[in-house]
Amino acid sequence: MIRLTIIGSGNVAQHLIKAFSANPLVEIVQAFSRKKEALIHLLDSKKIVTEFSALKEADLYIISVSDNAISEVSSQLPFENQLVVHTSGTTSIDILDSKNRKGVFYPLQTFSKTKEVDFSVIPICLETENHNDYAILENTAKSISNAVFSISSEQRKALHVAAVFVNNFTNHLYQIGQEICEEHQVPFEVLRPLIQETAEKIKTLDPVDAQTGPAKRHDSVTTDAHLDFITNENQKNIYKILTQSIQNNGKKL
Amino acid sequence: MIRLTIIGSGNVAQHLIKAFSANPLVEIVQAFSRKKEALIHLLDSKKIVTEFSALKEADLYIISVSDNAISEVSSQLPFENQLVVHTSGTTSIDILDSKNRKGVFYPLQTFSKTKEVDFSVIPICLETENHNDYAILENTAKSISNAVFSISSEQRKALHVAAVFVNNFTNHLYQIGQEICEEHQVPFEVLRPLIQETAEKIKTLDPVDAQTGPAKRHDSVTTDAHLDFITNENQKNIYKILTQSIQNNGKKL
Repeated sequence: MIRLTIIGSGNVAQHLIKAFSANPLVEIVQAFSRKKEALIHLLDSKKIVTEFSALKEADLYIISVSDNAISEVSSQLPFENQLVVHTSGTTSIDILDSKNRKGVFYPLQTFSKTKEVDFSVIPICLETENHNDYAILENTAKSISNAVFSISSEQRKALHVAAVFVNNFTNHLYQIGQEICEEHQVPFEVLRPLIQETAEKIKTLDPVDAQTGPAKRHDSVTTDAHLDFITNENQKNIYKILTQSIQNNGKKL
Repeated sequence: MIRLTIIGSGNVAQHLIKAFSANPLVEIVQAFSRKKEALIHLLDSKKIVTEFSALKEADLYIISVSDNAISEVSSQLPFENQLVVHTSGTTSIDILDSKNRKGVFYPLQTFSKTKEVDFSVIPICLETENHNDYAILENTAKSISNAVFSISSEQRKALHVAAVFVNNFTNHLYQIGQEICEEHQVPFEVLRPLIQETAEKIKTLDPVDAQTGPAKRHDSVTTDAHLDFITNENQKNIYKILTQSIQNNGKKL
């Protein structure tokens, strides 16, 4: 049984409280929130504390607050030599106050307030300063997820950049697709199954093997026709650069 | 009962034969293939013809051959004033020989030989020269798919360009994500659930509403840190241009 305390009341903190509450391998000792109301729907009110001085002993303290507040919160904790972790994807482990043993417990997913998440498939990226603490974090993570990874602060930076490409930028390409449809009075619905299939293929194929289309085929008749067809200069520019990038990869430049 | 003949033996032709064979509303009169062996696993050999002169009367002839061959095949058909359609996404309806009534029957999906498809969710884009022919095509399409759209040749061009953005370019962004992971010894597996969730959101949200991330938030501290982190000039260029494009959209420029 791992006894843990969650510090914070935001989106990720609430998803974690939900996931751990239903978990027989974990006991939530307490949760800290400046305002008790923020968590009252999730936890017995006796377990919700609003002052750091009221925090009891636990095996693990998970700080799940905004990136900017992690440092200050960790310095205000009224104890020493405990295992204290944050849940941020972009923040180094070093931001945590050195009076406690440091770690990172980063669930890599886009959390939306309105959408339930299945934690079992969410990758959880772990890092600890001390080797012995890793087992505690790993047991905690594995109690809610089947995808637990040891990821250093440097690797987490790479993941965040890569996530911008596969999530933020991909979604922006969906938007351009929709704009082109709207400009020519085609319902965007027509493209939705293709979007799903594109993502579906990546479950089993490496992206380089899944690549298709005129750029990959070096079909300049089609790519030239597409560039003639596109009226928006920004879209034209993105089309050229991504086509070139696909073709350069094919050549292993 | 619609009586149709399929001309061609490639990937799309074979998927269509499979879908129509199981369909009580459609009778496959014949299929044309230069080589009988190409279709023998799908159809009674008596229905497979290897000469155009052996083609019998049908309500609809679907030419499913490579884009370059459509024109020649349509000119070789030994009959007139029948409904003849092609299945190409990029080719105009005008490419078909004028001795017959022209149409387009374009299933918009990436077909792979090794992966079964569920035709019921594949959009089928229809076009006919004559208004009366549209009903025949529509009944045929609706017998295998729940997503049937009337799409002009001009609209089909737009769809193809948009499909390059949401499919080819999106897949290339997955590849860049994988390259960044590999460069920093992070398993690409960590990103796969995020890729799925990004596509999943588009089932119910417009892309502009689903957009998140540092570009959208105009978080220049993070975007500058990412640009410092990226070592590959091509990736850096793509990062800049897509970040700028996201930010310009936010401003409704």
